[in-house]
Amino acid sequence: MAFRQLDLSDAELDEIEGRYAPLAEAVRELIRATILSRAGDEVVAPVLAAVRSATDSLNAEVDTDHAGVNYNSAGRSWSWGNAGNGLRNPVAPPIEVVFADDGSTHAELDLGPAYEGPPGCVHGGVAALLLDHLMGFTASGLDRVTFTGTLTLHYRNPLPLGPVRLDGRIAREEGRKVYVEASITGDAGTAIEAEGLFIVPKWSPDFEATQH
Amino acid sequence: MAFRQLDLSDAELDEIEGRYAPLAEAVRELIRATILSRAGDEVVAPVLAAVRSATDSLNAEVDTDHAGVNYNSAGRSWSWGNAGNGLRNPVAPPIEVVFADDGSTHAELDLGPAYEGPPGCVHGGVAALLLDHLMGFTASGLDRVTFTGTLTLHYRNPLPLGPVRLDGRIAREEGRKVYVEASITGDAGTAIEAEGLFIVPKWSPDFEATQH
Repeated sequence: MAFRQLDLSDAELDEIEGRYAPLAEAVRELIRATILSRAGDEVVAPVLAAVRSATDSLNAEVDTDHAGVNYNSAGRSWSWGNAGNGLRNPVAPPIEVVFADDGSTHAELDLGPAYEGPPGCVHGGVAALLLDHLMGFTASGLDRVTFTGTLTLHYRNPLPLGPVRLDGRIAREEGRKVYVEASITGDAGTAIEAEGLFIVPKWSPDFEATQH
Repeated sequence: MAFRQLDLSDAELDEIEGRYAPLAEAVRELIRATILSRAGDEVVAPVLAAVRSATDSLNAEVDTDHAGVNYNSAGRSWSWGNAGNGLRNPVAPPIEVVFADDGSTHAELDLGPAYEGPPGCVHGGVAALLLDHLMGFTASGLDRVTFTGTLTLHYRNPLPLGPVRLDGRIAREEGRKVYVEASITGDAGTAIEAEGLFIVPKWSPDFEATQH
């Protein structure tokens, strides 16, 4: 589990992201259609061939088995395969965490049919994924490393597919322990309330800084 | 949130699933390539056009906004869009829960680059999704309805991408409360231990049955 420094300039990163972000979005639409279409073989057979051909084209230039978490000499970081917010990952909803001045966080997103669990509702595990993601960002504040210690989720109400909002905040800190509270709310009200304990690793320079 | 009875025979369901399961698998491969490819515009531009065209073909016969949870008169149930195990959902890892005679459960799967969080490791939220899914199945035993009440996850170790195994069992039951314990283990040992409280709804015929 290593962070990698790669020799890519910000301009090169912009170019790559401008090329692949629209593809990731197009694949999200394809996922939706794969779930919902009622088309028969005469449509699906050529679609299957086209998808396999597209994949072969892309795979001709694949030389890694995961995207990793990378940074360049300018300090920019990217993790294109992240299951929560990876810019090139069509599995990611994606969730974009917004920070307020007081360190609290929120995120708004629209969850479609690829995230279903109970009929018409968001899968409880997808809600857990989103909360884990937002709470980790909330604990780290984007300026220190934290690891998830314990996560507790209280399921209160169903969460219908469609627009959802997450809110998070640091409740308190004790040494290397960061306690985060968060919730996810949809059209039927607050669906899940969550508490998390996040840990600043002993090797963190941020932790050492707080000891002096 | 309603379960739907649809007038599709088992033979018709087999035909549809035989048509779309290979497409879902092909889209999973496309997702992987979208994350990992280093191809330039000369490759990605035609791929993007092909993906959009494929989606348009499938969308010409879409008349719902989610797949739902359905059953037919023969008692067969299907939920093609489920984010955990939906047969037509390329987002789903997918997880297949296996029951032992004593009611305990396990699942084995291989998690690729679409499920990354920390570098080279499974996103903590994806692990939460998988645990929630397996634990819900474990609580229901496939023969009663249960809802997630509380889920607590203890993150012990990183979970590398690759082969993972989940194990679950009912620890005890008290009236309508079902307590489930589970874990997820990877190449670096047991990564997460989890406890869940699941609730049998008051309207459940299974609960009424236990009252007599």
